[in-house]
Amino acid sequence: MPIVVQKYGGSSLADAASIKRVARRITETKRAGSDVCVVVSAMGDTTDELLDLAQEVSPLPPPRELDMLMTAGERISMALVAMAISDLGFSARSFTGSQAGVITSAEHGKAKIIDVTPGRITSALDDGHIVIVAGFQGVSQDTKEITTLGRGGSDTTAVALAAALKAEVCEIYSDVDGVFTADPRIAPRASKLDRLSAEEMLELAAGGSKILHLRCVEYARRYNIPIHVRSTFTDKIGTIVVDPAEGETVEAPIIAGVAHDPGDAKVTVVGVPDRSGMAAAIFEAVARAGLNIDMIVQNVSAVETGLTDISFTLPKGDGKTALKALEEIRPTVGFHSLQFDDQIGKLSLVGAGMRTNTGVSATFFKALADAGVNVEMISTSEIRISVVTREERLAEAVRAVHSAFGLDSDSGEAVVYAGTGR
Amino acid sequence: MPIVVQKYGGSSLADAASIKRVARRITETKRAGSDVCVVVSAMGDTTDELLDLAQEVSPLPPPRELDMLMTAGERISMALVAMAISDLGFSARSFTGSQAGVITSAEHGKAKIIDVTPGRITSALDDGHIVIVAGFQGVSQDTKEITTLGRGGSDTTAVALAAALKAEVCEIYSDVDGVFTADPRIAPRASKLDRLSAEEMLELAAGGSKILHLRCVEYARRYNIPIHVRSTFTDKIGTIVVDPAEGETVEAPIIAGVAHDPGDAKVTVVGVPDRSGMAAAIFEAVARAGLNIDMIVQNVSAVETGLTDISFTLPKGDGKTALKALEEIRPTVGFHSLQFDDQIGKLSLVGAGMRTNTGVSATFFKALADAGVNVEMISTSEIRISVVTREERLAEAVRAVHSAFGLDSDSGEAVVYAGTGR
Repeated sequence: MPIVVQKYGGSSLADAASIKRVARRITETKRAGSDVCVVVSAMGDTTDELLDLAQEVSPLPPPRELDMLMTAGERISMALVAMAISDLGFSARSFTGSQAGVITSAEHGKAKIIDVTPGRITSALDDGHIVIVAGFQGVSQDTKEITTLGRGGSDTTAVALAAALKAEVCEIYSDVDGVFTADPRIAPRASKLDRLSAEEMLELAAGGSKILHLRCVEYARRYNIPIHVRSTFTDKIGTIVVDPAEGETVEAPIIAGVAHDPGDAKVTVVGVPDRSGMAAAIFEAVARAGLNIDMIVQNVSAVETGLTDISFTLPKGDGKTALKALEEIRPTVGFHSLQFDDQIGKLSLVGAGMRTNTGVSATFFKALADAGVNVEMISTSEIRISVVTREERLAEAVRAVHSAFGLDSDSGEAVVYAGTGR
Repeated sequence: MPIVVQKYGGSSLADAASIKRVARRITETKRAGSDVCVVVSAMGDTTDELLDLAQEVSPLPPPRELDMLMTAGERISMALVAMAISDLGFSARSFTGSQAGVITSAEHGKAKIIDVTPGRITSALDDGHIVIVAGFQGVSQDTKEITTLGRGGSDTTAVALAAALKAEVCEIYSDVDGVFTADPRIAPRASKLDRLSAEEMLELAAGGSKILHLRCVEYARRYNIPIHVRSTFTDKIGTIVVDPAEGETVEAPIIAGVAHDPGDAKVTVVGVPDRSGMAAAIFEAVARAGLNIDMIVQNVSAVETGLTDISFTLPKGDGKTALKALEEIRPTVGFHSLQFDDQIGKLSLVGAGMRTNTGVSATFFKALADAGVNVEMISTSEIRISVVTREERLAEAVRAVHSAFGLDSDSGEAVVYAGTGR
């Protein structure tokens, strides 16, 4: 029997009524002739409530115990979903991450999935049960400790199980209808995409689209698992994310969509001696501090002084740590000063068609120029162009680019945005 | 290093402030030079909240999923206690029942502890950690399913761990100061016992004392674990429950205390043919329905009719099931009718000294007669006399017997009752 993996997020499991709705949807899939393995997040506010309790007890709780606490959230929702399914006359079995065979690395709060050994799930499916698995959690390989996967963890659990079970599809349910050509809250004429390559989804996620987490898309792409992004609240088809099979020709639009991210800040190291090894020293210092950086620009060095400026972007919250790490190497590198700018925004245009279509860059920059948006940094990949602008101009920039590439839908109806949760 | 097992109930873990208080007490024990293994119940209202959620989702949830749900309660409290301990500068590790090696039978909701394999706990204690274990839960031996132990489960977990770890003592903390000669809410002049034999505690628990659950005392007695019943809210010594070592002479009072239980009902099977096998048929029918009965009285059969009446007591809530089971065998046994009386109360006088002291029964029944309390049923063991009276006379009967055996304390101060929770 084909296996379908479904994942329901916290906003789909807000209360008893929502849980019953989800149970009905799950049983419909089972009745339609598939084995169903469901991955659940914690109910609506549970995670915040548990975090509040932890804060009341200890300002800096040990990560191991925080994981022990947080995993109670999915345990509660999975048991309730199983009960609701059973109440509809179907048989359901819930499993913790550990019981489901989700084996992870040992870093509490941000563990990575190393392996999935779904023996108990396979047996339960073979026995005709609907299986409910706690998302976001696993057990560490060597120490057998309970771990959590960090942001996007439940989506990643779902895709990892889909791969291990050789599922037909991994359906990710939330309160939005699918992947849009831009965030409809900013570009009201954005429209839902029916299909998208995993490669494009990766770039959109990296560019700030919140609909699917980067890790989950990477996992799906590696194991070639089709993801179906869809809404819990309608029966409409959402967006299928999958790379076309080799040799398959897909009549795909040049541009998939526009992503934006107001969450980054820019650090500029001013007056860096233009000698070899200086840039390396700077980025090694930042990496040692455990920070990921995104875009990098190095100015052409001034002939008179032999000095250059190096700018890079990183998440706003990491700014302080980066500045501290850089100050520490100031004596060695000998730069003049540091600048920190958290009023920037990033815009990314993504499309697999960029590879074979000329003129995309020209149209892109002309649209920004016509809208009077100044570009501060640029980075590109084969299928993406990203720029940094002032944060206050970001929304306008998104709309301008969206229009310039003909992505605006004709009718407002196609772009109804189902929710505000993400 | 000596090992102390401590158990904290839900009323001791009602909120963040209570959890911090418990953490301080735990670290004081550690600082005083013992290894500490702590067993916790779910926080105050958690169990009720989870049960409410289950009810909203399904009127009759599958027991397996109910166990999965309920065990989230102790998981939350154990992680929070570990965090609070860590915040005091000590290192703590929490473990689920499964991780702690609590191996049980497979009956969800009322599993029995079969074995304890505390390898992870011993390692953690050896590494200098304070260990926190989720009470009330375990993992089934063959099916590896998560189970709960039912009523009194956390106390039983604590005693079972104390036995497996060869602990010096198992301290059971709650909101009362110890074991009293009677329930102070009914007999205001009841006084706290400093010491009590496990045998006596067993009879008091069977007689309706709620301070320790029967299963827990049975376990402690079998493995000869001293239990120290004491209050979370004071540093006062509570009550030590342990059987005297062989040959040890203990200067113990004749009477330990008076227990009462308003929770039973009486079923009378009227007009049973006085033939062999009739009583067996009746009690087999009740046992098949899964019911435990307590006291039994069979009248002398009337010579003219050859008929007798058989009465027995059982928990009020089991009355309907018992009547249904008996109606089914009415055609075979041929009795006349069934009577059900849920207005009864049970009073038990317990004391190891009864074995060697004559006149206890005489004093007991005289006290009841003087108080005008009518006795409806009687049952005795070596160290206990129990009677059934009208429920409305029960409190008066307790006070009369308590006085008659000189148990009334002289000053009101000694009997301050610390709480109302149990």
